[in-house]
Amino acid sequence: MKKILVLHGPNLNMLGEREVDVYGNIKLEEINRQLKTFGQDHGFIIEACQSNSEGDLVTMIQKAKGSFDALVINPAAFTHTSIAIRDALSAIDIPIVEVHLSNIYQREEFRQRSLTAPIAKGIISGFGVNSYLLGVRAAIEQISR
Amino acid sequence: MKKILVLHGPNLNMLGEREVDVYGNIKLEEINRQLKTFGQDHGFIIEACQSNSEGDLVTMIQKAKGSFDALVINPAAFTHTSIAIRDALSAIDIPIVEVHLSNIYQREEFRQRSLTAPIAKGIISGFGVNSYLLGVRAAIEQISR
Amino acid sequence: MKKILVLHGPNLNMLGEREVDVYGNIKLEEINRQLKTFGQDHGFIIEACQSNSEGDLVTMIQKAKGSFDALVINPAAFTHTSIAIRDALSAIDIPIVEVHLSNIYQREEFRQRSLTAPIAKGIISGFGVNSYLLGVRAAIEQISR
Amino acid sequence: MKKILVLHGPNLNMLGEREVDVYGNIKLEEINRQLKTFGQDHGFIIEACQSNSEGDLVTMIQKAKGSFDALVINPAAFTHTSIAIRDALSAIDIPIVEVHLSNIYQREEFRQRSLTAPIAKGIISGFGVNSYLLGVRAAIEQISR
Amino acid sequence: MKKILVLHGPNLNMLGEREVDVYGNIKLEEINRQLKTFGQDHGFIIEACQSNSEGDLVTMIQKAKGSFDALVINPAAFTHTSIAIRDALSAIDIPIVEVHLSNIYQREEFRQRSLTAPIAKGIISGFGVNSYLLGVRAAIEQISR
Amino acid sequence: MKKILVLHGPNLNMLGEREVDVYGNIKLEEINRQLKTFGQDHGFIIEACQSNSEGDLVTMIQKAKGSFDALVINPAAFTHTSIAIRDALSAIDIPIVEVHLSNIYQREEFRQRSLTAPIAKGIISGFGVNSYLLGVRAAIEQISR
Amino acid sequence: MKKILVLHGPNLNMLGEREVDVYGNIKLEEINRQLKTFGQDHGFIIEACQSNSEGDLVTMIQKAKGSFDALVINPAAFTHTSIAIRDALSAIDIPIVEVHLSNIYQREEFRQRSLTAPIAKGIISGFGVNSYLLGVRAAIEQISR
Amino acid sequence: MKKILVLHGPNLNMLGEREVDVYGNIKLEEINRQLKTFGQDHGFIIEACQSNSEGDLVTMIQKAKGSFDALVINPAAFTHTSIAIRDALSAIDIPIVEVHLSNIYQREEFRQRSLTAPIAKGIISGFGVNSYLLGVRAAIEQISR
Amino acid sequence: MKKILVLHGPNLNMLGEREVDVYGNIKLEEINRQLKTFGQDHGFIIEACQSNSEGDLVTMIQKAKGSFDALVINPAAFTHTSIAIRDALSAIDIPIVEVHLSNIYQREEFRQRSLTAPIAKGIISGFGVNSYLLGVRAAIEQISR
Amino acid sequence: MKKILVLHGPNLNMLGEREVDVYGNIKLEEINRQLKTFGQDHGFIIEACQSNSEGDLVTMIQKAKGSFDALVINPAAFTHTSIAIRDALSAIDIPIVEVHLSNIYQREEFRQRSLTAPIAKGIISGFGVNSYLLGVRAAIEQISR
Amino acid sequence: MKKILVLHGPNLNMLGEREVDVYGNIKLEEINRQLKTFGQDHGFIIEACQSNSEGDLVTMIQKAKGSFDALVINPAAFTHTSIAIRDALSAIDIPIVEVHLSNIYQREEFRQRSLTAPIAKGIISGFGVNSYLLGVRAAIEQISR
Amino acid sequence: MKKILVLHGPNLNMLGEREVDVYGNIKLEEINRQLKTFGQDHGFIIEACQSNSEGDLVTMIQKAKGSFDALVINPAAFTHTSIAIRDALSAIDIPIVEVHLSNIYQREEFRQRSLTAPIAKGIISGFGVNSYLLGVRAAIEQISR
Repeated sequence: MKKILVLHGPNLNMLGEREVDVYGNIKLEEINRQLKTFGQDHGFIIEACQSNSEGDLVTMIQKAKGSFDALVINPAAFTHTSIAIRDALSAIDIPIVEVHLSNIYQREEFRQRSLTAPIAKGIISGFGVNSYLLGVRAAIEQISR
Repeated sequence: MKKILVLHGPNLNMLGEREVDVYGNIKLEEINRQLKTFGQDHGFIIEACQSNSEGDLVTMIQKAKGSFDALVINPAAFTHTSIAIRDALSAIDIPIVEVHLSNIYQREEFRQRSLTAPIAKGIISGFGVNSYLLGVRAAIEQISR
Repeated sequence: MKKILVLHGPNLNMLGEREVDVYGNIKLEEINRQLKTFGQDHGFIIEACQSNSEGDLVTMIQKAKGSFDALVINPAAFTHTSIAIRDALSAIDIPIVEVHLSNIYQREEFRQRSLTAPIAKGIISGFGVNSYLLGVRAAIEQISR
Repeated sequence: MKKILVLHGPNLNMLGEREVDVYGNIKLEEINRQLKTFGQDHGFIIEACQSNSEGDLVTMIQKAKGSFDALVINPAAFTHTSIAIRDALSAIDIPIVEVHLSNIYQREEFRQRSLTAPIAKGIISGFGVNSYLLGVRAAIEQISR
Repeated sequence: MKKILVLHGPNLNMLGEREVDVYGNIKLEEINRQLKTFGQDHGFIIEACQSNSEGDLVTMIQKAKGSFDALVINPAAFTHTSIAIRDALSAIDIPIVEVHLSNIYQREEFRQRSLTAPIAKGIISGFGVNSYLLGVRAAIEQISR
Repeated sequence: MKKILVLHGPNLNMLGEREVDVYGNIKLEEINRQLKTFGQDHGFIIEACQSNSEGDLVTMIQKAKGSFDALVINPAAFTHTSIAIRDALSAIDIPIVEVHLSNIYQREEFRQRSLTAPIAKGIISGFGVNSYLLGVRAAIEQISR
Repeated sequence: MKKILVLHGPNLNMLGEREVDVYGNIKLEEINRQLKTFGQDHGFIIEACQSNSEGDLVTMIQKAKGSFDALVINPAAFTHTSIAIRDALSAIDIPIVEVHLSNIYQREEFRQRSLTAPIAKGIISGFGVNSYLLGVRAAIEQISR
Repeated sequence: MKKILVLHGPNLNMLGEREVDVYGNIKLEEINRQLKTFGQDHGFIIEACQSNSEGDLVTMIQKAKGSFDALVINPAAFTHTSIAIRDALSAIDIPIVEVHLSNIYQREEFRQRSLTAPIAKGIISGFGVNSYLLGVRAAIEQISR
Repeated sequence: MKKILVLHGPNLNMLGEREVDVYGNIKLEEINRQLKTFGQDHGFIIEACQSNSEGDLVTMIQKAKGSFDALVINPAAFTHTSIAIRDALSAIDIPIVEVHLSNIYQREEFRQRSLTAPIAKGIISGFGVNSYLLGVRAAIEQISR
Repeated sequence: MKKILVLHGPNLNMLGEREVDVYGNIKLEEINRQLKTFGQDHGFIIEACQSNSEGDLVTMIQKAKGSFDALVINPAAFTHTSIAIRDALSAIDIPIVEVHLSNIYQREEFRQRSLTAPIAKGIISGFGVNSYLLGVRAAIEQISR
Repeated sequence: MKKILVLHGPNLNMLGEREVDVYGNIKLEEINRQLKTFGQDHGFIIEACQSNSEGDLVTMIQKAKGSFDALVINPAAFTHTSIAIRDALSAIDIPIVEVHLSNIYQREEFRQRSLTAPIAKGIISGFGVNSYLLGVRAAIEQISR
Repeated sequence: MKKILVLHGPNLNMLGEREVDVYGNIKLEEINRQLKTFGQDHGFIIEACQSNSEGDLVTMIQKAKGSFDALVINPAAFTHTSIAIRDALSAIDIPIVEVHLSNIYQREEFRQRSLTAPIAKGIISGFGVNSYLLGVRAAIEQISR
């Protein structure tokens, strides 16, 4: 059975506790649970990890190589600042889908620049939890071709 | 039965005939056919229009108000240049999903600016025809709440 | 009797229906009616047109040459993006007054640039419907000298 | 009877003596006389002051609070450089109309930025003396509602 | 016999009537007549169209595909603002020559950016009517190889 | 007994009367009274002045040389526009502490540049009246070494 | 008894050993000792942590929520580069005071941008160790209201 | 006998007391004395004024019209910030020479922009007191033609 | 018989030997031979020179004054860096045509700026050797009027 | 025997596995082996570490102080984003040599800025593995003086 | 007897022949003659050279070291483009005065940047031939101290 | 025996005489002597040339083609200004190594842009004379593969 890794960047462990008006009140565990169920329903194994550390995320991405068939990533704040994560994404050769809970085009100027998006296959932004579900669908579509 | 309008911007009528390496060789009629079938399968009426004219697209968007429950739009070149389309999108109060065939983050500098994206609920970019299908899914999710 | 053309740019046909907090709830027909009455009261014929199409506005401006004695124009979104309308305005030799319903200095960064204003005799911005009435007054003053 | 304060910024005391091709040959006293007559004709008291000093203009604006019902101001050079005048305008709560003799969009790059305009209700620019008369009309319209 | 399409952008229908000091007093019909004669003399059919509408120009360019052997275009104002025309030019695979009546390097800052030029084979700018004649020559040279 | 001069820039005389949501409803006289009491409690004489005039503030700063042991200044709007005040601050050799009522990092773009801050020993910003009290503490600490 | 967390960013563990001319020769332990004594004297518990890792600082900030009543943070180099820390600061709802040993306005261009300051209540910069003491005072003032 | 006005801008009254390494230790009175003697030796009356106030300098410049044959001005800090002084200089029609004690090209970025220099006949910068003497020579040369 | 000077800038002596994919494999001597033949056929004397030295090109341009009736120049790299050549071109009063082998709009960012083009009558770019032939035609048209 | 520390930044542990066309197919262990042999041959002890974590690299650099005589560092992605590493490098007083496998001048715009290079003694970029060997040579030369 | 070298940059050999409205109709030989006479009258030997070549000017400046006591240079176009001349000026240790015939602040944007001025003692700009005479005076004053 | 050309750009003939604190007191002849000895020791012929003239350097580079196996170049000031040298370097197909005596990242803003570096194989900067020796090593490594 094919495997998909879902990576959550910094502060996403605080979902449902912080800025509820922006991100909604669903918790990360609930998102992960929904994603796994969705995977099972479609015949895929979905694993999910979160880290506040850029270096840990780099290492997780590196390790995805060979272990997973696709990567769905919400790099959160690191979208705009981390060339290291960009380089890690460039170093693996599985399909990558970048997702965001909020519509980053509606946010601060410094969130308009994305270092990671040019490396991804595509980007899904602004649909809350549904961004993840659509992202996993997109990833499945990529690896089912 | 709820209705979704899918709008295609300039040059999308040339799909499958131009720059096949970038956009694939599927034709617009085929995309529209797939979208309509998808709609039927999920209990929604989907109508699709294309125009090369900014003014016509503005008018189509204005007319969507009251006639449709959601709008999925690929503004193509006008994404980056048309404040008029942005203003038209602001003037209607149904959910809007912006989609792009290619990953605009991988393209020219002048395609990095999006005038329309801040008005949309969310954006889906880079998955070819699948961007439309995911976009319709996202729209359905919005109007099914 | 001298004639003044009033041109309304894209989305102004939606006045009173969209973003009522920004533009008020008066409709375009009502504005046109007030302008015509005002013209009659002061001995001028006032005609008014609206279009969502840049090309149509260019053609309307070109045709004003020889048929009208002054032009009052609210280019709306095209203020900031249309060199074609700027060029059309440069090509006629009657007085031009640019008007805006809202104070464009209070709006988005991309609305701060005006391509058309340097071609106009003067600009009136921020007074709602009254911007048009003051604009017609200014035009009358120009052609009554 | 309601009162309107008209403030003239730096170098406007030289009107009619300097750069006649840009500003015309009317003197400031004549403008003030016309404004007062116009006020009387419409049932308003109009007072006018001029200063070359940013600090004095700040103080005049502060004092307008409570004494006047509206403010018409031509900040001249300070339009583009004075945050202090902007802050003073923000601190009073009567309608403010900004006027300019020339069309500032036709002038030097450094005159394109306006620090004061976002604080005003609206702006009238480019009609010579008539900018003031239209500005007073706009102010009257504001306080007559 | 091979065919060349000559496209004239917005406001070029006003040639000879507007800004005679910049563009000369020759009319568009006269230019088209000269071009056709020139074509006949060299064994090519030349057709010419003008439009003030971006969308119409996009459609004309799309239709050139398969019907014409080369395209000579003066996009006028759209040179600097239209990604839609750029995309249309990218979608056809016949040689494209961009021409301008005036030397665009001598004009306003906002005319320094060209969105269409990188798609053309080459550019000819500044020689008045002769720009068109040289442009047709260049096109002929391309399709005669 | 050592002496500290507290200088208040333009519009600070309006404290408690303007933009109460931003600056609170305390008046300048009350701030000065608190500062003087604080000085007395710690064995320092504190004098306070306010001016709306850049030139007067320059002169006050110049005169502080030789008469005061430290300067606490809130240049308000002049923080961002006055090189003259910067030069005056450079010309005296007593410790300078710059204070702001509001957190200038949360305000308009044009308030992000500070011409005076590089000349000060340090900056305290965002704590309302307490910014002044902390500023005087910082100044005392400097001159008590 | 209320608790205040003091967070020291990267390289602050080298205080007193590096760039003594810029930062003075006091060691971090000594600063922490002074802060704790200061806290005890005023009836507050002060805890202090340092990390060179952005991710660890994000986690420490997240954990402050519910455990501490205020946060005093010197993000050091991360002030200018870390959106992740900014987001973590946004996610907690206790008062935040940002402090800097040196006056960042006197330093390199790239240290002029602060990502964290707009999230803090206020900023204190340039007073060496005293910046921390003033920062704790400011925090106490916030939580004692 | 022809008359030349020498105007000194803000902080020049502190010459010889401030930043001696930059400006030397000569006092303003001594400069003025040298200039007057120089004038007498060459048959010109030289008057000198200094002000820290932008508004006063504007008024002094306005009054020079008709009373003086040439103006030598060191606008100091206002060189870079005052459009009002620029406008005043534009309003008089006598030769203007701008002088600076220090070489402004060796100073801060914000001193590289000169608002007043384009209005002057010429600029002399970097020669200390001698800048004034050379400036008066240049002015004399202008009015002796 | 009228004379036309053709000037080739730096590295054009390497034509046919370097970057053949960009510039083609024709050698400079061959271009010059074609140009001279073309001149003879049309009744003009054409002389051609090349230099890698900016100074030599400046001198050649200066000497063209009085000796030649028109100048066709490919300034190559100096197009983008040489104000000296621009000034030399401004100093002669014969028609100037600027030509480029490649389409400079398709090349590096730093080749987008042209210092020389605003001084030329017109520009021809992108047609390989044919750029020169069209350039000579344009020059002939200028001097045959 | 003197000791040199070689630090490898993020993703360098993937050498030989990722982007082989850019970085070659040599593995990091092989580079380290070559460096150690080289050190032995020249009488120096060379130790090598790699980390994907910015914080760990900061700590490694801090610890180099006192333990090593020179530092050769390839900060990889952190070259362009890490002020924390720059600050750590500033805090140690041994010679620092910055090396890069690829020529960073040939890469993306965002890799053109180097935060660390101004702190290094010198930079070697573009020679693949040889960059390291040359870097160690340069370091040896520094500490052998 | 002390010696002063006067260097004239590119195109100054065309003085009196080109752009007479900008530079006047005096020829370079006449300027040099006046300068030499002026030198003799004041007891200095003045030599003058001109070159269109950046490299030659660099060499002339290098040779001035040891042979001349001061340098007066009008770098003309190279003022804005030549780092090589800047470096040569930095390498000699005699006083340098930069002069310009026209007021460079009144000219094109690209002439606003000066690479050489920060190396000179001072700059004199805008007085035509008199700029040279004032420049020699300034140089004499430097070497007579 | 393979041959390497070492090219020195403008002002490097002044080494050891100018700015000794920046460049050291070694003379160019001594560097060349060391390089030649180094070449002999390793079995390569090394020739060295210097010029202050951009054109001469272009020609020298062109001539290296066919005569030398590698090029080591210190373009000095031309690094930042010469597209002509960049183009010449692009036109030869031997390995190129760019070297700099000083660390250009520690110098003026205008020295941060390198036009030549993207054409070189690699860059070595900041090691004084040793930059050349390392550069020759790197070149040898390239041509020995």
